[in-house]
Amino acid sequence: MTGDAHPAWLPDAAFAPLGRRTVAVLLPEQPAAREPTWDTVLREADRATSAHGGVLLRTLDPQVTGADPLDGPVRGPAPDIVLASTSALTGSHWRPRAASEPLTSPLPRDAFREVRVPGRTIVVATTGSGLLAGLHHLVRQGESVVTDGPGAASDTTHAPALPIRMLDHWDNLGPHPVMGQVERGYAGGSLFFSDGAVREDLSRVAEYARLLGSVGVNRVAVNNVNVHALEARLLTDGLADVARLADVFRAHGIRLHLSVSFAAPMLVGGLPTADPDDPDVRRWWADATAKVYAAVPDFGGYVVKADSEGQPGPFAYGRDHADGANLLARALAPFGGTVFWRAFVYDHRQDWRDRSTDRARAAHDCFAPLDGKFDDNVVLQVKHGPMDFQAREPVSPVLAAMPHTRLAVELQATQEYTGQQRHVCHLHPWWHEILAFRPWGAGRSVADVVAGSALAPGGGVVAVSNVGDDPFWTGHPLAQANLYAFGRLAWDPTLSPERVLAEWAGLAFPGATERVRSTLLDVLGDSWHTYEQYTAPLGVGFMVRPGHHYGPDVDGYEYTPWGTYHFADRDGVGVDRTRATGTGFTGQYPAPWRDVYESPDSCPDELLLFFHHVPYAHVLHSGSTVIQHIYDSRAAGAARVEQMAAAWSELDGAIPAGVFEEVAARLAEQVRSAREWRDQVSAYFFRKSGVPDASGRAIC
Amino acid sequence: MTGDAHPAWLPDAAFAPLGRRTVAVLLPEQPAAREPTWDTVLREADRATSAHGGVLLRTLDPQVTGADPLDGPVRGPAPDIVLASTSALTGSHWRPRAASEPLTSPLPRDAFREVRVPGRTIVVATTGSGLLAGLHHLVRQGESVVTDGPGAASDTTHAPALPIRMLDHWDNLGPHPVMGQVERGYAGGSLFFSDGAVREDLSRVAEYARLLGSVGVNRVAVNNVNVHALEARLLTDGLADVARLADVFRAHGIRLHLSVSFAAPMLVGGLPTADPDDPDVRRWWADATAKVYAAVPDFGGYVVKADSEGQPGPFAYGRDHADGANLLARALAPFGGTVFWRAFVYDHRQDWRDRSTDRARAAHDCFAPLDGKFDDNVVLQVKHGPMDFQAREPVSPVLAAMPHTRLAVELQATQEYTGQQRHVCHLHPWWHEILAFRPWGAGRSVADVVAGSALAPGGGVVAVSNVGDDPFWTGHPLAQANLYAFGRLAWDPTLSPERVLAEWAGLAFPGATERVRSTLLDVLGDSWHTYEQYTAPLGVGFMVRPGHHYGPDVDGYEYTPWGTYHFADRDGVGVDRTRATGTGFTGQYPAPWRDVYESPDSCPDELLLFFHHVPYAHVLHSGSTVIQHIYDSRAAGAARVEQMAAAWSELDGAIPAGVFEEVAARLAEQVRSAREWRDQVSAYFFRKSGVPDASGRAIC
Repeated sequence: MTGDAHPAWLPDAAFAPLGRRTVAVLLPEQPAAREPTWDTVLREADRATSAHGGVLLRTLDPQVTGADPLDGPVRGPAPDIVLASTSALTGSHWRPRAASEPLTSPLPRDAFREVRVPGRTIVVATTGSGLLAGLHHLVRQGESVVTDGPGAASDTTHAPALPIRMLDHWDNLGPHPVMGQVERGYAGGSLFFSDGAVREDLSRVAEYARLLGSVGVNRVAVNNVNVHALEARLLTDGLADVARLADVFRAHGIRLHLSVSFAAPMLVGGLPTADPDDPDVRRWWADATAKVYAAVPDFGGYVVKADSEGQPGPFAYGRDHADGANLLARALAPFGGTVFWRAFVYDHRQDWRDRSTDRARAAHDCFAPLDGKFDDNVVLQVKHGPMDFQAREPVSPVLAAMPHTRLAVELQATQEYTGQQRHVCHLHPWWHEILAFRPWGAGRSVADVVAGSALAPGGGVVAVSNVGDDPFWTGHPLAQANLYAFGRLAWDPTLSPERVLAEWAGLAFPGATERVRSTLLDVLGDSWHTYEQYTAPLGVGFMVRPGHHYGPDVDGYEYTPWGTYHFADRDGVGVDRTRATGTGFTGQYPAPWRDVYESPDSCPDELLLFFHHVPYAHVLHSGSTVIQHIYDSRAAGAARVEQMAAAWSELDGAIPAGVFEEVAARLAEQVRSAREWRDQVSAYFFRKSGVPDASGRAIC
Repeated sequence: MTGDAHPAWLPDAAFAPLGRRTVAVLLPEQPAAREPTWDTVLREADRATSAHGGVLLRTLDPQVTGADPLDGPVRGPAPDIVLASTSALTGSHWRPRAASEPLTSPLPRDAFREVRVPGRTIVVATTGSGLLAGLHHLVRQGESVVTDGPGAASDTTHAPALPIRMLDHWDNLGPHPVMGQVERGYAGGSLFFSDGAVREDLSRVAEYARLLGSVGVNRVAVNNVNVHALEARLLTDGLADVARLADVFRAHGIRLHLSVSFAAPMLVGGLPTADPDDPDVRRWWADATAKVYAAVPDFGGYVVKADSEGQPGPFAYGRDHADGANLLARALAPFGGTVFWRAFVYDHRQDWRDRSTDRARAAHDCFAPLDGKFDDNVVLQVKHGPMDFQAREPVSPVLAAMPHTRLAVELQATQEYTGQQRHVCHLHPWWHEILAFRPWGAGRSVADVVAGSALAPGGGVVAVSNVGDDPFWTGHPLAQANLYAFGRLAWDPTLSPERVLAEWAGLAFPGATERVRSTLLDVLGDSWHTYEQYTAPLGVGFMVRPGHHYGPDVDGYEYTPWGTYHFADRDGVGVDRTRATGTGFTGQYPAPWRDVYESPDSCPDELLLFFHHVPYAHVLHSGSTVIQHIYDSRAAGAARVEQMAAAWSELDGAIPAGVFEEVAARLAEQVRSAREWRDQVSAYFFRKSGVPDASGRAIC
């Protein structure tokens, strides 16, 4: 663990507007009915009022305060802010004028109700996690935490759009010889594990849980989906330690999950098979799961990467992935647990000579026929795109193909393919675009799909975490904004990235000048587009160095078994995925996209090379040719990074030196790397196409 | 250590022709004059005669045997073979008729004299290592160990052509996180080290030393030239262990060396500098070296990789490499030690956009101006080519540019760039070509240069060892032939690869049928040319996967800082290293090569792309175009590997099953890999050039 951690978006100063007030916290009276999140709300309110000179009230006895203490003048200490459980208000007929129904009316899980009258803000919830969400909602309002003076009254119920708001950690217990301690981690070691075991000191984990709870994340998987021998034993020998971790997260409304190996019955159970149809295997999972719940009564469930990149799975036994997922689901069901079953299944030993096999098709080919076969406590966890977390991909057609299946869309906060937290790449605009995508052209969006329907229970969003034991949590201090944004969009996918970014900047840089805030928005706001500009063009993807995936290598994956090709030759570039002449992947989409993507005339520019192999002289909708676009966009992207670095350098002295310097150093690397991307990609295509840059730029 | 080791070229059966004879071993009488190699000769003779029913004599008392026991009829047991020190014969006037001068005449170090008369073979030497060489020379004669029956008498003195015949091991004490325990090792772990220390049990090292001693290797460096913190301490804390290793090698005539860090005065000495001009630094090296010699009186000296790929060196202090090398040389000189100073110095952070910088020039640019400045106990260790152990490079011009410097040419037995001991690639033909190269067109060869001259003491050859703790020593059982060949060519660079290969096959496969022998020669004989055919064409080099260097990746190093480019574009390929229009590297050669290489008309085909950037339609001396040569040679190479595998499969049952199966499995991988090379290189150039294969083969 590396020194004191940065407070991220929860610096003490962020609590000042609330902490200066008189805050009443009214919790359920029956301890049996209490979740530890109730205490967390109380502790936060106490901490805020103690730090900032406010007053904390634990009761609002009408005999003391007189009349209706929530709606009228009071005697004695009058609360500006009331945070109450609906049950604590039972027996009262408190009903503020603004309220459409009694404050005691029960609310859904995690939801809260915000009632405002001039000079007073009341938040009620039926669950502790709902009240905790309400508390942090108020914190985010800053000085508007109470509408002082005359103003309109309001009564708003806030509920998360998505039931599942989950972070997956790809943490190993000890360092893997190639992948390190955190697979695809760019922020130091694991928060949870050290030296092959769960850390003794979990204080940093508690800070992390507080950060996640403050933005509504409600599930965390703590270990890598590639489950090695050591991690497999978390499920058995490691349960006491898993319980310690679960305790820490529980206080912030977060359920803990474990990634498990499909072969666990063999790996740790000593059975000769992991066949889902084998009674001993089913019994083993039932027994193992019962033991987990004995240790962690609110355990969330399992995460499984099966038949993927070498991990074991049901295919070995001639079973399908519904058989596999349901095996675990049935062990979990009696305890209310969930299986997160990843749809990331493809042939990673493909022959690059074979242009008929298409990795993009794999998840749909494997899973769409299984729609309706998964138990209700299976969540099929689908990567947002058909490939693998590239900076640009179409949305996975699986998300539109399984109406009877509970679905979650998987995002990648850890910046494996988006600059590895050495580059500023603010991902909320990308994630927003994905969740707002309408697979049927009009009607339901991806966010709507994963929210559930009459045919399937609600799923949600899962992101691979970008956090480690780094002092800034995320390596790059500005990558904290991605973590923040994930929580916010999981609660409300319709929130605009601009608004959330401004919100984050206000919290993380309290007291910042307008110049600082506008620079933050400037540097972060469009950084994903900028990253897209200087890296792989027009949706083609995967022009990264194999293995570590940092920096350019245009042909790095071209002749490999990984199914990630661009097929550039001297005449053109791109992958023909049409039904007419290509792999037929476009046919996995419903109309209108199956037709929009089918023709280069209608295919959006940014996905052109994902769907089509075109000549370099092909004219884009933008009016540029493909080859000139490659030159221009790389040059523009690299120039934009130089501007970002210049803008940041203006902040010297205006923000804490540690943050300033850390970001400045990383921006210098981003400038270097973006130039390298620009020059390598441009040189590669110039050497192949022979077409000079019309702008006259020299290309090596 | 992995089980029992394969006997390589010293199976007991190889000693049968000698061991069936009556063998007299006459050693020096004065123990003080004895090297442990004398005892080794005695032990070998004893072992051979005991195993095969012969007789070992320790004396030839003329009063017992009568007359001249070496030249006439004898009474009592008459030796067929006499192995004697010249001193043991002092006082005798034995002078066989065939002998041109008395047998007591002293011989140079390591040399031996072989006198044959009908029915008797006499070997004399002045040193134990000479007699050991003579013994193994006889073993290699097989049934011709004695010329039975009437035959011509002969008297031949055998002396090594090169004083230095050295193997460098790139072994780490513990596994390096990226490079493993043996850097560029493809034969398991280290023979010497385990768990961060010298092994307790050195029996396997003793077997290795016996193998090396039998072919005349006389120096070994045991640790990696990239010296990490742990290895740096071998020089200090590790001396007792180093002494144990030295004892083992000494018995076989081999002196032990350590690779040291130029920064050792800082790393292990705690000094603030490693500046060669600093008196404390000089004192530190003198003291440290004295301690080494106190532990190992015949310590060979140091091996240094300085200012190379991140290793520290004299440049940091504004000193040149003569200053650096002489610093260590002067510490070693009082004890008779030698510095092996590697000339592998280049900029590994080059800008790929900059076509004026040429890594091929680097060693000559750095070292040629220093000719004459190195002390006599410095050996400048020069890689055979200007780049880095590719399957084809021109000979390094440094070897022709430093007449006043003691030089050794460095070869790579470990197959980093030649198939990593998964491919059969018999390197003797390549090494032979290098050593036979005449830098001035006529006159002295590279072998002559490193043998020394009136202007500089003799150097020799150094090879990076291909050995590890693998049961077959070298991973691929047939790669043993490379180790064997290295020893033989270091003794006599004029030996033909065909002859040495047949010699090895006879020893390593005793009793093999003619069919087995001819298959061995067929599979191994031309395998280097075959490897060259399917990998990087026409001398262009470096089309390997970065990092591990196995398998094809045509652009893998193209846009990197390593200085290893091919500059392929849609029109042509190759590096212009001419004086007229290129980097001027051709000018580093003396005539005639500076002119031969300068013009594509005279440049040998196999080096064309090393020296010239030419259009794909350029016509080679072979009559083919460059592009068609690329297609044809790759196809021919891959087809040849298929033939090799087929030929080997015929040996099932004819050779020991363990060897058969191990080689068969590796040949299967070589077939797969050669096809991959063929297809990737062909596809790459087809996509770039657009020229179809005239033979009609389909290219993806």
